[in-house]
Amino acid sequence: MINKQWILKSFPRGDIADTDLVLEESNLREIGEQEILIRNIYLSLDPANRGWMSGQASYVDAMKIGDIMRGGTIGIIEKSNNEKFQVGDYVNSMGGWQNYSISSGKGVQKIPQNTGFELSAFMSVMGMTGMTAYFGLLDITDPQEGETLVVSAAAGAVGSIVCQIGKIKGCRVIGISGSDEKCNWLKNELNIDGTINYKTEDVRARLKELCPDGIDIYFENVGGKITEAVLTRMNIKSRISLCGLISGYNSESLVPGPAWGHLLIKRIKLQGFIIFDYQKRAMEAFQDLGKWIVEGKIKYKNDIVPGLENASSAIKKLFAGENHGKLIVQISEE
Amino acid sequence: MINKQWILKSFPRGDIADTDLVLEESNLREIGEQEILIRNIYLSLDPANRGWMSGQASYVDAMKIGDIMRGGTIGIIEKSNNEKFQVGDYVNSMGGWQNYSISSGKGVQKIPQNTGFELSAFMSVMGMTGMTAYFGLLDITDPQEGETLVVSAAAGAVGSIVCQIGKIKGCRVIGISGSDEKCNWLKNELNIDGTINYKTEDVRARLKELCPDGIDIYFENVGGKITEAVLTRMNIKSRISLCGLISGYNSESLVPGPAWGHLLIKRIKLQGFIIFDYQKRAMEAFQDLGKWIVEGKIKYKNDIVPGLENASSAIKKLFAGENHGKLIVQISEE
Repeated sequence: MINKQWILKSFPRGDIADTDLVLEESNLREIGEQEILIRNIYLSLDPANRGWMSGQASYVDAMKIGDIMRGGTIGIIEKSNNEKFQVGDYVNSMGGWQNYSISSGKGVQKIPQNTGFELSAFMSVMGMTGMTAYFGLLDITDPQEGETLVVSAAAGAVGSIVCQIGKIKGCRVIGISGSDEKCNWLKNELNIDGTINYKTEDVRARLKELCPDGIDIYFENVGGKITEAVLTRMNIKSRISLCGLISGYNSESLVPGPAWGHLLIKRIKLQGFIIFDYQKRAMEAFQDLGKWIVEGKIKYKNDIVPGLENASSAIKKLFAGENHGKLIVQISEE
Repeated sequence: MINKQWILKSFPRGDIADTDLVLEESNLREIGEQEILIRNIYLSLDPANRGWMSGQASYVDAMKIGDIMRGGTIGIIEKSNNEKFQVGDYVNSMGGWQNYSISSGKGVQKIPQNTGFELSAFMSVMGMTGMTAYFGLLDITDPQEGETLVVSAAAGAVGSIVCQIGKIKGCRVIGISGSDEKCNWLKNELNIDGTINYKTEDVRARLKELCPDGIDIYFENVGGKITEAVLTRMNIKSRISLCGLISGYNSESLVPGPAWGHLLIKRIKLQGFIIFDYQKRAMEAFQDLGKWIVEGKIKYKNDIVPGLENASSAIKKLFAGENHGKLIVQISEE
């Protein structure tokens, strides 16, 4: 059997180049004792992937040249020498950018069946994406009724869930996004209180209009100029949940700023987080998120790109802000 | 009676220029109903003063051109039409850069007498400086025994108290300072565990040597390149108390950076604070600090410059790192 795999050939400098990732074929070996064979179905594309390719260790080990590109996957067990897994089980794992992965079972989690949720939901709202929104907002900022919450990358996979959890908690929610289409979706479908198209509007002036009582909570996905504008409207003793800084991910080193002076003058509490730290509390998130989806309080959108061969071009959509909801590559049929 | 007063003539651009502050004389008026006349004895010079002169409101109203330069003072009541104050009372107030101030009594606090502490101590370790160190370290970072604490501007008024409170709490304390003389004082007199002279040593390399288990707490007074170096050694889930950013105070606008990416990857909690917010809890600090001074666990150094006429040149010492301990101008005899 042939396995197609995306191989990291060079560390990207700035934007990911076509030569950085190359699709190759290899022969699939037989599984050994205690091993399982997973046929990958869905591949998750996330802003954090760019950091993994940088050649520098961060919260995970650095990838090396020649590695299979790292990525979260949903797959189905096709062979098993491990009593914990049966053929036909659907599983979540770091299966990588390839058709098949062989695993000892470590870090592989079964996906519950017959839940009523589509399989791809376990890669978005009922997966890491939903957990990120849930703990990043609730655990880090503890939003209170009547507070003003501003979300950047608000139409993105995480941002759109954050907006809706904010509404459930009684916040006034303002979303910053990069197109009128996304802004309309946020406003008309997700019913948030106000939107700003950062590509066509003056973010600072619009924040002043939309946040007359200042900003109590900022859910940070982007960094850069948008954040500078938000900081000028933050209230005394406000909070920032630092989830991502996508505006700087294609830079060759960490980007300075935004200025810490705002954090000092406004006595802001800022907390960075990585969702892996919340793995043990996952069920808290999924119980609430599942209930809210069933009640119609949370809507989500998956942007599914067909074909493993399109993974390398698809990931660029994230940095151009061209994805609509959670970006997923479909590698094979369910 | 003649009152000498330093007047803000222009907002400094970059470093404070000799023409920004001018010493003028005016006639002292009689006090009115409920008013008190304070003869100022000590004037506090602090990094935060630079921000007050910027023409931009921050956590206090912006100063205007023509205002008496704002400053914290210790003085003695010479006349009183206010039953709350008696002639001869020593008081703390925002008396400004002048020989005499007239006040309604609002914001004026009596200094306890016969405590055994010298009067100038109530402007440093038993005043705002001590409170800043106390709450900034204990309330914001909750240091635990065995943790590694790094302090920038460690030989400064606040930093030197932070170092010693860190030792009292059982931390391994590393101080960053700008001269061998200051480093020797920190090491030999205050008994901290290690020092770095940032002007002559490679801060990043020295931090690696001195903090083999990484950094759990960073008490931030400076910003800029020193902080970039510290961030590379911070541990996962470490804490930063954001007290000041003196390296950027003479810049025309808030200085970008340090990079937020470190805060994200390391899941750092950063909290800015302004000591005015802790006014109601002042006694907590003074009870502990007073006890520790008597027990010999906290030493402090006041750098007293004689003569109101020298205030404008003295404040520049702060930004050049030339003060030795808390910088105070003596305006008149006790």
